Amino acid sequence: MTDVETIKACVLPRIKPSDAEKSRLNKLAEKIILRINNLGESERIDIKGILVGSSARGTWISGEHDLDIFIMFPPDVEREYLEEKGIYVARKIAMKGESFEERYAEHPYIHSVFDGFEVDLVPAFNVKSGADIRSAVDRTPFHNSYVSSRIQGSEDEILLLKQFQKGIGVYGSELKTRGFSGFLAELLVIQYGLFENVLKAACNWKAGIIIDIEKHGTLIHRDPLIMIDPTDPERNVAAALSLDNMCVFIDNACEFLEKPDEKYFKVQIPSPLDDDEFIKIINERGSSLLAIVFKVPDIVEDVLFPQLHKLEESVCEMFEKYDFHIFNSAVWARENAIVLLELESAKLPHIKKHTGPNVWAKDFAISFKEKYKNSRNFSNIFIQNGRYMVEIPRKYSIARKLVESELFKCGLGKHLALSIKKEFHVLENEELLNIKNEEWRKFLRGFFEK
Amino acid sequence: MTDVETIKACVLPRIKPSDAEKSRLNKLAEKIILRINNLGESERIDIKGILVGSSARGTWISGEHDLDIFIMFPPDVEREYLEEKGIYVARKIAMKGESFEERYAEHPYIHSVFDGFEVDLVPAFNVKSGADIRSAVDRTPFHNSYVSSRIQGSEDEILLLKQFQKGIGVYGSELKTRGFSGFLAELLVIQYGLFENVLKAACNWKAGIIIDIEKHGTLIHRDPLIMIDPTDPERNVAAALSLDNMCVFIDNACEFLEKPDEKYFKVQIPSPLDDDEFIKIINERGSSLLAIVFKVPDIVEDVLFPQLHKLEESVCEMFEKYDFHIFNSAVWARENAIVLLELESAKLPHIKKHTGPNVWAKDFAISFKEKYKNSRNFSNIFIQNGRYMVEIPRKYSIARKLVESELFKCGLGKHLALSIKKEFHVLENEELLNIKNEEWRKFLRGFFEK
Repeated sequence: MTDVETIKACVLPRIKPSDAEKSRLNKLAEKIILRINNLGESERIDIKGILVGSSARGTWISGEHDLDIFIMFPPDVEREYLEEKGIYVARKIAMKGESFEERYAEHPYIHSVFDGFEVDLVPAFNVKSGADIRSAVDRTPFHNSYVSSRIQGSEDEILLLKQFQKGIGVYGSELKTRGFSGFLAELLVIQYGLFENVLKAACNWKAGIIIDIEKHGTLIHRDPLIMIDPTDPERNVAAALSLDNMCVFIDNACEFLEKPDEKYFKVQIPSPLDDDEFIKIINERGSSLLAIVFKVPDIVEDVLFPQLHKLEESVCEMFEKYDFHIFNSAVWARENAIVLLELESAKLPHIKKHTGPNVWAKDFAISFKEKYKNSRNFSNIFIQNGRYMVEIPRKYSIARKLVESELFKCGLGKHLALSIKKEFHVLENEELLNIKNEEWRKFLRGFFEK
Repeated sequence: MTDVETIKACVLPRIKPSDAEKSRLNKLAEKIILRINNLGESERIDIKGILVGSSARGTWISGEHDLDIFIMFPPDVEREYLEEKGIYVARKIAMKGESFEERYAEHPYIHSVFDGFEVDLVPAFNVKSGADIRSAVDRTPFHNSYVSSRIQGSEDEILLLKQFQKGIGVYGSELKTRGFSGFLAELLVIQYGLFENVLKAACNWKAGIIIDIEKHGTLIHRDPLIMIDPTDPERNVAAALSLDNMCVFIDNACEFLEKPDEKYFKVQIPSPLDDDEFIKIINERGSSLLAIVFKVPDIVEDVLFPQLHKLEESVCEMFEKYDFHIFNSAVWARENAIVLLELESAKLPHIKKHTGPNVWAKDFAISFKEKYKNSRNFSNIFIQNGRYMVEIPRKYSIARKLVESELFKCGLGKHLALSIKKEFHVLENEELLNIKNEEWRKFLRGFFEK
């Protein structure tokens, strides 16, 4: 067995940015910030460029070429002014790069590419304290200064923790992943010190654990992990983390401490499932697969995935309501979005038992008997466990027909509703082989093997 | 619409014994009783024959040729003496009839046939009061005298009520039927007076209603209808009545009062289901039928049916435990007994989700992971809703195989266990057509049409 120290020493060189990489990144950041400041002066806009995020704190993993550059406006300007001038400045800066596009979070920002680095140019209010923020991004500079002053000398521990979380698939706080954010990883190191001490603590976590570094939390949070924001007593930094990702972290933390191994730091990419494997798997499982396929609307993943999960949940509820038993479900998206369902069976009997009122509930009894006396039933009205019953034809005995007919009645987010109303199709079992996308085939392997 | 009076007047002549029938029955009863008394004298056994039951009270329905003749022993003789001498006397008497057989309830009695009448010859203790009874049958003479003194002039109402209960299929307190006993019908008329007043009261019953004519009940009963025995404050006369038979009576009482009709007094005998009808029905329903068939052991129905129902319940529980969904079930018996099951599907996926402990339940987690790490699974161990999960092969994905392999593990009464261990077979869907018995085919129609 290898000890933790050895593992850390092996992993670190692979993930720690070299001096050359640091220098390239810093030079690019300085250049862009200078341009912002110059542009502000020449155009008489009161702004200041600053570098924030992991690139500002030296906690990015080698090869991750992301720069977060904020364009800070005075805290008292109008929101419209900030949005208009902010995007104007960002666009002018981005035009010097290789490419750029406008994106929308709480307000618009520019995602651009410079020398192979992905650079986000984000307008923000330069407020005096975390309590005064006017927009969610205004918090970031406070996070930056809080972390920067406390992690000097602990950068390696942060890199190891982030890479461990990447390796086990729980890194990233986007709504697609619902994992650990970089800021959360940094706070865990601030709280517990060494990488292995974070794991030791995590191995003993239970859902509902509260970490409050500044001991200033004021609200009750219902999330699985509660990390009170040291710059905002009302906020849980880990609000996006799902219970299952937290549990995967707990489980892997325990396992790693039990038997340290480099494999935990390596991102597992499943190989694409080929046609023969797929056929073999579905025959062995004996369940039924159903895929609802439609075009992904032009929205960011943080808007798309909550809508996909809402749809997934709503479709599952609909199936259960119609007596189909769902075994597994998942969502996937690239150009197309897919809600994938595994059912115990895609076929039900035509017959359905319909339960009526108690025999002594007179008024209900009369109307129940009125309603079912002359309709086309499989049985007469009878009594079971003190209640009227009748066996009636099932509305949907084929799962596919249910989706095709009732999908519009499911909870559809605004953007998905538009796309699905335009077109969707349902694929069943072997028909899923028509989806050739390699990423989808990788996802499918993960869906089956977990 | 016909009124209740008219209906009663139409039905009564059909069900009321003629003077000739009464006279034939009374003469036969007197003759047998005289023989019992004479035999007692000549053999120096202290016994006395008495006529009890509906034939003693003039409340039998025309054509029902049943005589209950009790051979009363002094209350202080030994039980063995009563059983030995009682059966000796009964057998001697029965030998004068056309045929007889020995039967067993709490103690042995003789069922015989005289001139086409079925005559039960039952030894009993001649105790002083209902509180002193030594055997369940000792109660009957007290019932007899209680009812006889109170129903004079109400015999027609009793006949109508019994025939109504026969017509709607809830008459008979045997454990096969679990309906209304004749004594219970008589007490209802004593309580409510006219036939239609019984129905009016019943139409407003709810489960748990208590009728206590003598206002002397002492115990709490959990039965759907509680009729305190006027000769025994601790006993519920309606203990054998099932909730559903009570509800059928309530429902039909209301319906009859709403729209009186002679049809309620006519026993419905379904026509046998032929092969084509059967095939059509099972195709339309789309469910799966399974019949477990075995020889009926040589026991009375009151012993057989509770064992059959216990088996039915136990088989249904087993199916649900293995994730098969039971739609309907029933039992039937002639020479063969059949447990009939209608399943949502007789086939399940090969795969089954197995839920493990919470991620933070350390010891359980370790042993769960140990157990499933290297066994042949469909998936890796994964985490869902904070718990470890794994997809494993299902032990039984074919319903028939489950019954064939595990039937012996079901709750089997003593007699059924012996018969089933000797031989049983399982028929599925069309295979059920091999059962040609006409009574079975009538039962099948009722099973589907209700």
